Amino acid sequence: MASGKQTYMDSIELKEQYRQALLGDVVPFWIDNSLDKELGGYFTCLDRSGKVYDTDKFVWLQCRQVWLFSILYNEVEQREEWLDVAQLGAAFLEKHGRDRQGNWYFALTQEGKPLVQPYNIFSDCFAAMAFAQLGKASGNSAYDHIARQTFSNILTRRDNPKGIYNKSYPGTRPMKGFALPMILSNLVLEVAHLVEPSQVDTVIDYATHEVMEVFHRKEMGLILENVALDGSKMDTFDGRLVSPGHGLESMWFLMDIGARRSDQELMHKSVDIALALLEYGWDDTHGGLFYFLDCKNVPLDRLDWDQKLWWVHQEAILAMLKGYMYTKNQRCWDWFEKLHGYAWSHFPDAQYGEWYGYLNRRGEVLLDLKGGKWKGCFHTPRFLFQGWRTLERITQSNPASV
Amino acid sequence: MASGKQTYMDSIELKEQYRQALLGDVVPFWIDNSLDKELGGYFTCLDRSGKVYDTDKFVWLQCRQVWLFSILYNEVEQREEWLDVAQLGAAFLEKHGRDRQGNWYFALTQEGKPLVQPYNIFSDCFAAMAFAQLGKASGNSAYDHIARQTFSNILTRRDNPKGIYNKSYPGTRPMKGFALPMILSNLVLEVAHLVEPSQVDTVIDYATHEVMEVFHRKEMGLILENVALDGSKMDTFDGRLVSPGHGLESMWFLMDIGARRSDQELMHKSVDIALALLEYGWDDTHGGLFYFLDCKNVPLDRLDWDQKLWWVHQEAILAMLKGYMYTKNQRCWDWFEKLHGYAWSHFPDAQYGEWYGYLNRRGEVLLDLKGGKWKGCFHTPRFLFQGWRTLERITQSNPASV
Repeated sequence: MASGKQTYMDSIELKEQYRQALLGDVVPFWIDNSLDKELGGYFTCLDRSGKVYDTDKFVWLQCRQVWLFSILYNEVEQREEWLDVAQLGAAFLEKHGRDRQGNWYFALTQEGKPLVQPYNIFSDCFAAMAFAQLGKASGNSAYDHIARQTFSNILTRRDNPKGIYNKSYPGTRPMKGFALPMILSNLVLEVAHLVEPSQVDTVIDYATHEVMEVFHRKEMGLILENVALDGSKMDTFDGRLVSPGHGLESMWFLMDIGARRSDQELMHKSVDIALALLEYGWDDTHGGLFYFLDCKNVPLDRLDWDQKLWWVHQEAILAMLKGYMYTKNQRCWDWFEKLHGYAWSHFPDAQYGEWYGYLNRRGEVLLDLKGGKWKGCFHTPRFLFQGWRTLERITQSNPASV
Repeated sequence: MASGKQTYMDSIELKEQYRQALLGDVVPFWIDNSLDKELGGYFTCLDRSGKVYDTDKFVWLQCRQVWLFSILYNEVEQREEWLDVAQLGAAFLEKHGRDRQGNWYFALTQEGKPLVQPYNIFSDCFAAMAFAQLGKASGNSAYDHIARQTFSNILTRRDNPKGIYNKSYPGTRPMKGFALPMILSNLVLEVAHLVEPSQVDTVIDYATHEVMEVFHRKEMGLILENVALDGSKMDTFDGRLVSPGHGLESMWFLMDIGARRSDQELMHKSVDIALALLEYGWDDTHGGLFYFLDCKNVPLDRLDWDQKLWWVHQEAILAMLKGYMYTKNQRCWDWFEKLHGYAWSHFPDAQYGEWYGYLNRRGEVLLDLKGGKWKGCFHTPRFLFQGWRTLERITQSNPASV
């Protein structure tokens, strides 16, 4: 077990490791390989070496990259290069990203023609985040306007996010998903400067309640991916599904809300749930966290359930670092060390840079892409940025206690 | 290399192995565990031991089981028990399976309420097959009528099988999938006794042309899962996708068409393509056939690409057995032996019976279900039945040549 002093000493080295990986490896990888200087926007399908292997543009990944370079500009350093990268994506999205009702498409061709309809509200969620951050970075109020309009549209679509693309027969088994309240709990803080304070509070209350009281199930100590519309459990494939990584990501969102509201109860509850999810999701045989589990331990309908995904481990590390920073719970630091050890020895690619995304259960590389349809310039750099800053705050607060 | 005599001797033992596994293991497993005697239809979500772990009813799997018990009745033995099993599913489907336009839902609740809309035309394809076989078995012309109507509906929906549930933006990248012409090449023979002979020929011509001249690409020696509507290749995730198992299954459908039409050229071409697909799809490191590959060998968007699925291996074995039966090509027998060895040493569950469906790349069990949302009472018993009968014909034809 790490003593207070060791934690302090480690964390100085660790914060440098996170900062260096962000600014010396991952950010340059995306700047070097992903910019479509000819047609605008970004290539996200990059092979192991960074070479583009597919030119389609997935709107949510475009948005995530705009957000990432905007937040680097806002919170690390006002480098013009970073603002230019963000604006390269934003201009493309502004021109091609939405249908006439302001819904964001799921995918576009390289030149920006709509390819896949706005069936997925997560394009909209990341568009609101992107344009809100870029509005701050650029001072351009047109971006604020897009963010505000998109956020309002998300709240309107909240009860039927898939709209006409919903394949469920109406009324037979009404249900709701964890992803939207979870994302809202983070998104609302991202757009807080653009909307009425009372609306911010309403959305935080809603998201916190849904996550902690509806999707988190006290009796199991787990967070479910789907529940019935009335909040009850469903003994179905959807209703039994647990995604430990999703739950862990949401717990650090809620810790940040706990900090914002000085809500110690919410903070400690979030830490406890995160620790329980780690105990539940850890693979004792091969190490790492499972992608999906079934809460009744019956067979899943997901063939990828046992795989080890980059973002799951990154979000778990952030949950533990933030948990430690906010509460000094030693179990958080111990879990951080275990997760950090697994992640840094399995995911980074020492030869070509950036992180692999998809490992099999044994931790061997399953797909050696650096980006694709579901992996872009988002989780890894956000993790390194958040990890760096959290470790910095830990080193700043620790000396007094040594 | 097997001599003609060895082949003959082996095939007598082998046909007994296939027959015994069908009638002594797999068929009893489904009779014992899958019948919903209370509400009708079948449970298909059966765990390793056969216990029901989910009660939803997936229409295409319901249809496949009706078909299976009907063909056993029609072609193995007229056991009343088998006809009763088929009718248990058919009565449920007849009552609950369709919307007002006669489209077949994708999923129903245990009691038959519609759960998932008819977004997937494969429900309809297997409904047509099921009711056509059961019409033969029962002599009930109402079943023939359902089969005929459904078949006609499939041909109408052929150009836009997903209908309003299609998420592609119209016009940007019009494309078509391999699955429908492939299934039609088999389905048309199943319903041949119910439709005009000229229509049978038209559909066979269409399906054969699409499979052999459009989806099969001479320059690569592969079958693509998706091509542009004009038949050109697409350098996109969909356009690069290859499913060796799908291709191999379609090749034995086309061998059967070649036999029906005494078309030696089609027969030999089908055998050659099947052999090329095996060379391409075989995993030299761990054995078995990959589930998906990318024809340009760039990263796929499928996390399950390297898994070893039961049906892929079963369809490959049938392609080789039929290829050998029809052409006596020794490469078919050699590949049959290799595939048979892999499949029988990895998939059957010696303890609880039936076959596992999902193995990881190393051939270890990934999900120990015997049935779920995508695996039911279909591929394994069809494979054992077809394998038995094909081996029987091989043993009958071989003595003369020894």
